[in-house]
Amino acid sequence: MAARRANELRPVRITRGYTGSAYGSVLIEAGRTKVLCTVSLTKEVPPFLRGKGEGWVTAEYGMLPGSTRERNQRKAGDGRSQEIQRLIGRSLRAVVDRKLLGENTLWIDCDVLEADGGTRTASITGAYVALHDALTRMKAEGLIAKWPLTSQVAAVSVGIVDGKSLLDLDYALDVRAEVDMNIVRTSRGQFVEVQGTGEHGTFSERQLAALLKLAERGIDQLFRMQRRALAGGRR
Amino acid sequence: MAARRANELRPVRITRGYTGSAYGSVLIEAGRTKVLCTVSLTKEVPPFLRGKGEGWVTAEYGMLPGSTRERNQRKAGDGRSQEIQRLIGRSLRAVVDRKLLGENTLWIDCDVLEADGGTRTASITGAYVALHDALTRMKAEGLIAKWPLTSQVAAVSVGIVDGKSLLDLDYALDVRAEVDMNIVRTSRGQFVEVQGTGEHGTFSERQLAALLKLAERGIDQLFRMQRRALAGGRR
Amino acid sequence: MAARRANELRPVRITRGYTGSAYGSVLIEAGRTKVLCTVSLTKEVPPFLRGKGEGWVTAEYGMLPGSTRERNQRKAGDGRSQEIQRLIGRSLRAVVDRKLLGENTLWIDCDVLEADGGTRTASITGAYVALHDALTRMKAEGLIAKWPLTSQVAAVSVGIVDGKSLLDLDYALDVRAEVDMNIVRTSRGQFVEVQGTGEHGTFSERQLAALLKLAERGIDQLFRMQRRALAGGRR
Amino acid sequence: MAARRANELRPVRITRGYTGSAYGSVLIEAGRTKVLCTVSLTKEVPPFLRGKGEGWVTAEYGMLPGSTRERNQRKAGDGRSQEIQRLIGRSLRAVVDRKLLGENTLWIDCDVLEADGGTRTASITGAYVALHDALTRMKAEGLIAKWPLTSQVAAVSVGIVDGKSLLDLDYALDVRAEVDMNIVRTSRGQFVEVQGTGEHGTFSERQLAALLKLAERGIDQLFRMQRRALAGGRR
Amino acid sequence: MAARRANELRPVRITRGYTGSAYGSVLIEAGRTKVLCTVSLTKEVPPFLRGKGEGWVTAEYGMLPGSTRERNQRKAGDGRSQEIQRLIGRSLRAVVDRKLLGENTLWIDCDVLEADGGTRTASITGAYVALHDALTRMKAEGLIAKWPLTSQVAAVSVGIVDGKSLLDLDYALDVRAEVDMNIVRTSRGQFVEVQGTGEHGTFSERQLAALLKLAERGIDQLFRMQRRALAGGRR
Amino acid sequence: MAARRANELRPVRITRGYTGSAYGSVLIEAGRTKVLCTVSLTKEVPPFLRGKGEGWVTAEYGMLPGSTRERNQRKAGDGRSQEIQRLIGRSLRAVVDRKLLGENTLWIDCDVLEADGGTRTASITGAYVALHDALTRMKAEGLIAKWPLTSQVAAVSVGIVDGKSLLDLDYALDVRAEVDMNIVRTSRGQFVEVQGTGEHGTFSERQLAALLKLAERGIDQLFRMQRRALAGGRR
Repeated sequence: MAARRANELRPVRITRGYTGSAYGSVLIEAGRTKVLCTVSLTKEVPPFLRGKGEGWVTAEYGMLPGSTRERNQRKAGDGRSQEIQRLIGRSLRAVVDRKLLGENTLWIDCDVLEADGGTRTASITGAYVALHDALTRMKAEGLIAKWPLTSQVAAVSVGIVDGKSLLDLDYALDVRAEVDMNIVRTSRGQFVEVQGTGEHGTFSERQLAALLKLAERGIDQLFRMQRRALAGGRR
Repeated sequence: MAARRANELRPVRITRGYTGSAYGSVLIEAGRTKVLCTVSLTKEVPPFLRGKGEGWVTAEYGMLPGSTRERNQRKAGDGRSQEIQRLIGRSLRAVVDRKLLGENTLWIDCDVLEADGGTRTASITGAYVALHDALTRMKAEGLIAKWPLTSQVAAVSVGIVDGKSLLDLDYALDVRAEVDMNIVRTSRGQFVEVQGTGEHGTFSERQLAALLKLAERGIDQLFRMQRRALAGGRR
Repeated sequence: MAARRANELRPVRITRGYTGSAYGSVLIEAGRTKVLCTVSLTKEVPPFLRGKGEGWVTAEYGMLPGSTRERNQRKAGDGRSQEIQRLIGRSLRAVVDRKLLGENTLWIDCDVLEADGGTRTASITGAYVALHDALTRMKAEGLIAKWPLTSQVAAVSVGIVDGKSLLDLDYALDVRAEVDMNIVRTSRGQFVEVQGTGEHGTFSERQLAALLKLAERGIDQLFRMQRRALAGGRR
Repeated sequence: MAARRANELRPVRITRGYTGSAYGSVLIEAGRTKVLCTVSLTKEVPPFLRGKGEGWVTAEYGMLPGSTRERNQRKAGDGRSQEIQRLIGRSLRAVVDRKLLGENTLWIDCDVLEADGGTRTASITGAYVALHDALTRMKAEGLIAKWPLTSQVAAVSVGIVDGKSLLDLDYALDVRAEVDMNIVRTSRGQFVEVQGTGEHGTFSERQLAALLKLAERGIDQLFRMQRRALAGGRR
Repeated sequence: MAARRANELRPVRITRGYTGSAYGSVLIEAGRTKVLCTVSLTKEVPPFLRGKGEGWVTAEYGMLPGSTRERNQRKAGDGRSQEIQRLIGRSLRAVVDRKLLGENTLWIDCDVLEADGGTRTASITGAYVALHDALTRMKAEGLIAKWPLTSQVAAVSVGIVDGKSLLDLDYALDVRAEVDMNIVRTSRGQFVEVQGTGEHGTFSERQLAALLKLAERGIDQLFRMQRRALAGGRR
Repeated sequence: MAARRANELRPVRITRGYTGSAYGSVLIEAGRTKVLCTVSLTKEVPPFLRGKGEGWVTAEYGMLPGSTRERNQRKAGDGRSQEIQRLIGRSLRAVVDRKLLGENTLWIDCDVLEADGGTRTASITGAYVALHDALTRMKAEGLIAKWPLTSQVAAVSVGIVDGKSLLDLDYALDVRAEVDMNIVRTSRGQFVEVQGTGEHGTFSERQLAALLKLAERGIDQLFRMQRRALAGGRR
C-alpha cells in the first residue's frame, strides 16, 4: 500500500442503517478502525433535568475484546473508556439544541469492532450521522417538532511523530507519537474540544498552531463525507 | 416477506475475516440477528491446566447496548450472559482435541450486534467457523502440528408456539413460545447439548421427539453452510 | 456400604419445618448432599408485574464455604450459581398458577450445607415441599383464596459413566461422567426441563432415550417421597 | 413456655459432625438460634506469615437469606458481617498457640441458619468445638505434633432491658435493650473481648460491673456444655 | 522528645472551621495523628425514619492513601473502616436527641490525613466539636428550634503494653500492645462504648478496672479541650 | 473582598511537609480550594516495566465527601476522578527522566480537602513540589544517584465567561463558563497538555490564542511560587 501523505486522511466509509433495532445505526470505518455507532431513545431524562422540558444526549464507549491484536478483557467503565465517552457526549451535545428534544434521552453507543487508532474521533464523526438519522425518525414519529441540530460536528486526531506533524494517526503511528492531539470542531468553524497531550514529549506554541491547521483541513473533509452519506437514502 | 415454513431456517450469512486483528473473525447473520465471533490466542493456560501440555478453549458472550429494540444497559457478566458463554465454551470444546493445542488458550468472543432471537445458537455456529480459521492460522504459524478439530459443531433453536413445533425462533416467536429448546450437535450425529425449557408450558415425550427431529434437519443445513463458507478462500 | 444399583436413588430424607422463621423451610438430604430450602414472602412484585394482579416466584442458590471437601470461597452470584437459580425458579413457576398468588413474591432460597453431587436437583425436589408449606400458611392467613399448585415437580440427575447409564450421580461419579443430564418433570408426566450436556463426550439419540427413561422412574419415586413428607403433620 | 429467669441461658444444643466434608462441623442451637460452624483447612498461610513456620486462624460469618423473619438479601461482606467475623477470628486465635499449627490456615465458617439473637456469641461457642474436632483430626493425620489449644473460649451476650440486667438476649429482647454487651472469655477466667454498646442508652460503672458478673456465670455454663459435647465420641 | 507518662495524653490541637464548605469542619490532631471531621447536612432521612419527624446522624471514616508510612490503597468500605464508622455514628447519636433534629440527616465524615494510632477515638472527639458547630449553624438558620445535644462525648484508647497500663497509644505502642481498649464516654460520666480486645493476650477483671480508670481521666481532659475549643469564636 | 482582575490568580499558599508519613507532602491552597498532595514510594514497578531499570510515576485523585457545599458521596474511581488522575500522572511524568528513578514507583495522591474550582490544576502545581521533596529525600537516602527532574511543571485553568477571557476560575465562575480550558506547561515554555472544552459554547481560533496567552502568564507566576516554597528549608 502506498504511504499516506502527512495531511491525508485514511479511507473513510460510513454505512447507515447498519443494524435495524436502534433509532440510528452507523458503521464508520477509517482505515482498519471500525466503530458501530447506535442511537437509542428513552422517553425520560436524568433526575437533574426532570420537569424542565429539555432533553439529554449521553454517550457510552466500549471496545470488543477481539478488537485489538492482543485480546483486551471485557471491563465496563475503566478510566480510558469513561474519559472517551464523556468526550463523545460533550461533542454531540455541542451541536444539539436540547430545548427542542422534549423530555427524551438519546443514548449514543459507540462500540469498537476493530481498533487501529483514532477510535474516539471516528466515534464522534460516525455518531453525528447516527444522531441525524435518529432525529429524522423522531421527527417523522412526531416526537420532536423542530430540527434540533445546529451544525455538523466531526473530529480527527493529529500528532507529532519523529518531529513531524501528521494527520489521522493509526495505531502504529500513535504509539510512536511524541504528541497526540484530538480536535473536535463544528461546521461553523468553531472548536468544541482541543485536547493536546505530550506523553513522550512536549510541544511549542508554533507546533500547536501547525497541528490545529492540519486538523482543520481533515475535519472539513469529514464534513463532506458526512453530508454525502446523509444524502444517500436511508439503507 | 413470505412467511417461513415451520421447518425452514431464516436466511443465514457467514462472513469470514470480518475484522483483521483477531486470529479468527466471523460475522454470522441469521435473519436480523447479527453476531460477531472472534477468536483470540493467548500463549498460556488457566492454572488448573498448567504443565499438562494441553490447551484450553473458553468463550465470552455479550450484547451491545444498541442491539435490542429497547436499549439494554452494559452489564458485564449478568446471569444470562454467563449461562450462555458457558454453553458456547462447552460446545466448542466438544469438537476440539485439546491435547493437540499445546499450552495455548483460544478465547472465543461472541458479541451480538443485533438481537432478533437465536443469538446463542448463531454464536455457536459462527464460532465454529472462526475457530476453524484461527486453527488454520495457528497451523500455518507452526503453533500446532496436527489438526485438532474432530468434527463440525452447530446449533439451532426449536420451540412450541401455539402448540406447533417450529424451527429457528426469532424474537417475536420466542416470547410467545410455550417451550424453547436449544440443540447443539456434531456433524457425526452426536448431541453435545440438549436444553429444553418450558417456562410457559411443559412438554411431553412425544413433543420432545418431534422437536429433536426438527432440530436435526436444521443443524444439517447449517453444517452445509459452514462448509460452503470455509470452502471460499480467506477474505 | 453395598453399591447402589444403576437405577437406584440415594437415600432421601425430607425434614419439614427445619427452621421456624420462614414461611416454608425444608431440609432435604440425598445421600450426603444436604440442602436447606426456605421460602420467604414479600408483599410486592418486581416492576414488570406491578398492577397486573399476579404474583412471582423466584429462587436463589448458594453453597456454604464449608459444604465441599475443599473449602469454596463465598462468592455471590458466580456464573454457576446464577445458572442454577434460574433453573430452580423456572421449575417451580411451572407448577404454580401465578394469577392465584396476588401481588406477592415467593423467594425460594436453596442453600447447600453439604455438597455431594445433585445439589440442583435436590434443591428443586425440596423446594417443592417448602413451597407447599408456604402456600398452606398463606392460605391459612387468608393471603390466597385458591390453591395455586397445579401439580408436583421434582428433579433428578442421570448420566453416562464409563459408557453406562446411571441414575442420581454423586460427586465421585459426576466428575467421571461423559454425559450429565438434569431432568425436571411434573407429576402429570410432562417435562419442565431437559438439560443434557456432554462435556467429556457426546451422546446419541438412543442414549438420550435411555437416560430419559431412567430419570422418569427416579422422579416418580421422588414424587412418592414428597407426598409422604407432606402427609406427616407440620413439624 | 415458662419465662426464663434473668440469669438463665436459653437451651443450648451442640451437634458435632453435622456435615462430613469439613475438618470440623458443629451445629449449635441456642433457643431458636441455629448456627452451622465448619472448620476447613488449607495448607498455606497469608502472605504476612509466609516462611515463619506459624499457622493462621480466620473466620467468616454469614446469614442465610431465610434465617430471619423478614428475608434478608444475600450480601457478601456488609459492615456488620465483617465486624462479626473479625470478632470470631480474634476470639479463637486467643486460645490457639499458632506456632504449633505449622504453615496451615484454619478457616472457620459460621453460617446462621436461623437468627433469633446471639448469633455472634453462639458462633464463637460453637466454633470452639468445631476447631477442637478439626485439630483432633489434624493430629491424627500427623499434621500437627503438639496440641495447640491453650484453654476453652466461649461467649455470651448480656444487656440492660427496661433498666434490668439480663443474660443471653433473644431477638425480641435485643431490639428493646438500652445496652447490649458481648463478652468473650477463656476457661482460665481471662477476658478476650468486652464489647459494651449503648445505642439506646448509656451505662454506669456499676451497671458495667453487674453485666460482667452475669456474663461470667453464663460463660461458665457454656464451658461445661462444650466439655460435655466433646466427651461424647465423634458421630 | 521527653517520654510521656503512662497516664498522659499526647498533645491535642482542635482547629475549628478548617474548611468552609461543610456545616461543621474540625481538624483534630493528637500527637502526629491528624483527622479532618466535617459535618454535612441533607434535608431528608433514611427510609426507616421517613414520616416520623426525627432526624438521623451517621458517620463515614476513611484513611487517605498517603496517611500511613506504607501507602495504603484506596478502598471504600473495607471491614475495618466499616467497623469504625459504625462506632463513630453510635457514639455521636448517644448525645443527640434526634427528635429535635427535624427530618434532617447529619453526615459526619472523618478522614485521616495522617495516622499514628488512635484515629477512631480522635475522630469521635473531633466530630463532637464539628457537630456542635453544625448544630449552632442549623439553629442560626432556623432549621432546629431546640438544642439537641444532651452532653459532650469523647473517646480515648488505653492498652496494656509489656504488662503495663498506658493511656492514648500511638502506632508504635499499639502494635506491641497485648490488650487494646477504646472507651467512649459522655460528660455525665456514662459509658457509651467499652471495647476491649486482647489479640496478643487476655486480661483479668482487675486489669479491666485499671484500664477503665485510666481512660476516665484521659476523657475528662478531652472534655476540657473540647470546651476550650468551642469557647473560642468560630474561625 | 475586592474583585480579582481577569488576569489575576487567586492567592496561592504552598505548605511543605504537611504530614510526616509520606516521602513528600504538600498542602496547596488556591483561594478556598485546598488539596493535599502526598508522594509515597514503593520499591517495585508495574509489570510492563519490570526488568527495564526504569521507574514509574502514577497519580490518584479523590475528593473528600465534605469538600463540597453539597456533600458528595465516597466513590472510588468514578469517571471524572479517573480522567483527572490520568492527567496528573501524565503531567508529572513529562518532567521526570524515569531512567534515573531505578525500579521504583512514585505514587502521587491528590486529595481535595475543599473544592472551589481548579482542583486538578492545583493538584499538578502542588504535586510538583511534593515530588521535588520526595526526590530530595530519595537522593539523600541513596535511592537515586542523579537528579531526575528536567524542569518545573505547573497548571492553571482559563475560561470564557460572558464572552470574556478569565484566568483561574473558581467554582462560581466555572459553572457559568462557556469554555473551560486547562493548560499544563513546563518552565521551559513547552506545553504538556492543552485541554479546551466548550460544553456551553464553542470557541474560535482567536479566542483559543487569547486563552493560551492568559494561561502562560498565570503559569509563570506559579513557577515563581513553587521556587519560593522550595527555597524555604524543609519544615
